[in-house]
Amino acid sequence: MATANEAGDTAGLARRVLALAGDATGSAGITVVLAEPGRVHLALARRDDLLQFKGYFHGGAISGLADLAAGGSVTTLLPPGRGVVTISLHVNFLAPAKGERIVAKGSVVKTGSTVGVSSVEVVAIDAGHEQLCATATVTFRVVSSG
Amino acid sequence: MATANEAGDTAGLARRVLALAGDATGSAGITVVLAEPGRVHLALARRDDLLQFKGYFHGGAISGLADLAAGGSVTTLLPPGRGVVTISLHVNFLAPAKGERIVAKGSVVKTGSTVGVSSVEVVAIDAGHEQLCATATVTFRVVSSG
Amino acid sequence: MATANEAGDTAGLARRVLALAGDATGSAGITVVLAEPGRVHLALARRDDLLQFKGYFHGGAISGLADLAAGGSVTTLLPPGRGVVTISLHVNFLAPAKGERIVAKGSVVKTGSTVGVSSVEVVAIDAGHEQLCATATVTFRVVSSG
Amino acid sequence: MATANEAGDTAGLARRVLALAGDATGSAGITVVLAEPGRVHLALARRDDLLQFKGYFHGGAISGLADLAAGGSVTTLLPPGRGVVTISLHVNFLAPAKGERIVAKGSVVKTGSTVGVSSVEVVAIDAGHEQLCATATVTFRVVSSG
Repeated sequence: MATANEAGDTAGLARRVLALAGDATGSAGITVVLAEPGRVHLALARRDDLLQFKGYFHGGAISGLADLAAGGSVTTLLPPGRGVVTISLHVNFLAPAKGERIVAKGSVVKTGSTVGVSSVEVVAIDAGHEQLCATATVTFRVVSSG
Repeated sequence: MATANEAGDTAGLARRVLALAGDATGSAGITVVLAEPGRVHLALARRDDLLQFKGYFHGGAISGLADLAAGGSVTTLLPPGRGVVTISLHVNFLAPAKGERIVAKGSVVKTGSTVGVSSVEVVAIDAGHEQLCATATVTFRVVSSG
Repeated sequence: MATANEAGDTAGLARRVLALAGDATGSAGITVVLAEPGRVHLALARRDDLLQFKGYFHGGAISGLADLAAGGSVTTLLPPGRGVVTISLHVNFLAPAKGERIVAKGSVVKTGSTVGVSSVEVVAIDAGHEQLCATATVTFRVVSSG
Repeated sequence: MATANEAGDTAGLARRVLALAGDATGSAGITVVLAEPGRVHLALARRDDLLQFKGYFHGGAISGLADLAAGGSVTTLLPPGRGVVTISLHVNFLAPAKGERIVAKGSVVKTGSTVGVSSVEVVAIDAGHEQLCATATVTFRVVSSG
């Protein structure tokens, strides 16, 4: 049986990850940088309404992208018909997210039939230089996505 | 000496809270529902780009509003010239945030000269009915805002 | 049918809460101060091996007591045969836990058939004076306790 | 100038890490498995009062050991006379901590002059087999340890 985490089905994984986010993804210009079993990287380009008063990416933008990358990473390991709902999100902000885009790199810590946990690093890309600006741990409930 | 947390200066507190957020606030249509010493409530109206695939407010929107309400609440207790930077954000998602707007209600748990902690309840307002959809605990570093 | 959360069965609730903890409870001298539907308060008396280098209660003692009070509070709302397993524990340390005992006061934020969340305040009692020293949010999976 | 994080001064680092914990360390039988700049691993042997009702290591024991390993890891990068105080502790419990001992492996994510963050993996050792049972993120305030 074909599953979303079959080797080689990167395009299918990417579509499945983006389907999670709906309008929030489309309008925010989120792009899938990497989608493979257990890992999803998502990029978000700078836009005025994503910035706080000093011109850095806002905490909500960072947290939202981390949540999506984490949820995507867990989803890549689930059988078809199963999805995730966020239970809790923990973010540590380490440095100002300054630059032309941010990338959230989610990787699964553990997933089971009812609960999944993913760890995320969020980097800011500024003139080609990549700086770690936040880490996050996101906990999900695995649910029927029917 | 006039300080931002003088009794009666609600308008001043609200201005100070909104100044925290810059473009993110203006364009997102965030409004200050309440601003008094130690407590800030912020509302965010439904908009397509704030929704996830099922039509509920997205985790990033909820987290971002919680962060701002929490930061606002701590700021109301600081002397002029002092502001906050988020260290960590912990959110528990309790129910789908379904409705025409969400309101984040931040209240200070404790603040000192270097670290402040605020607790937030986020409710969704749906046809006049208010439902608790998330709680958050946000930890801040107190910094010079000069 | 008699259930553990029937009005008046405080002793039954207390026994059920203590049964959660096994040896850790007995040997640590934890006592149930309050057990009612949705709320459990547990006390832990000062003992040398619970203290850190400055003589305050250690973070592990505070976290462990918070976990138990939170789990107890959720358990009081579950039907017989159901119990909890901790998914995640988030603690904010607000002040040194100095005194002759600490009390963790857990109250349920929300519980459903699969996930429960409880909020905890931990106070230190020093010569009769009570000071808030930590807050915690604990997330549980509801499981069969058979 | 001699500093605690000089190459080769592993014994000095280990002493400094243990000094953090006072009686809690000594009596709990915590041992330093590894101490090098930015990383500290601590082991805790099974003992009846550290177990919960199913015979696994209790959440408080896991959280406390994670807190110490994290604090130790940040301390190894601080100049003499500086120490840490825990601001917040976030633990995800992934599997029962079953076995003869647990080891908490802390490594620094970032540290500055006022705030440090460390990431921890806690494994349980059961008949030589090592299983990941918890992850933690711990946030510290850097203070004078004088």
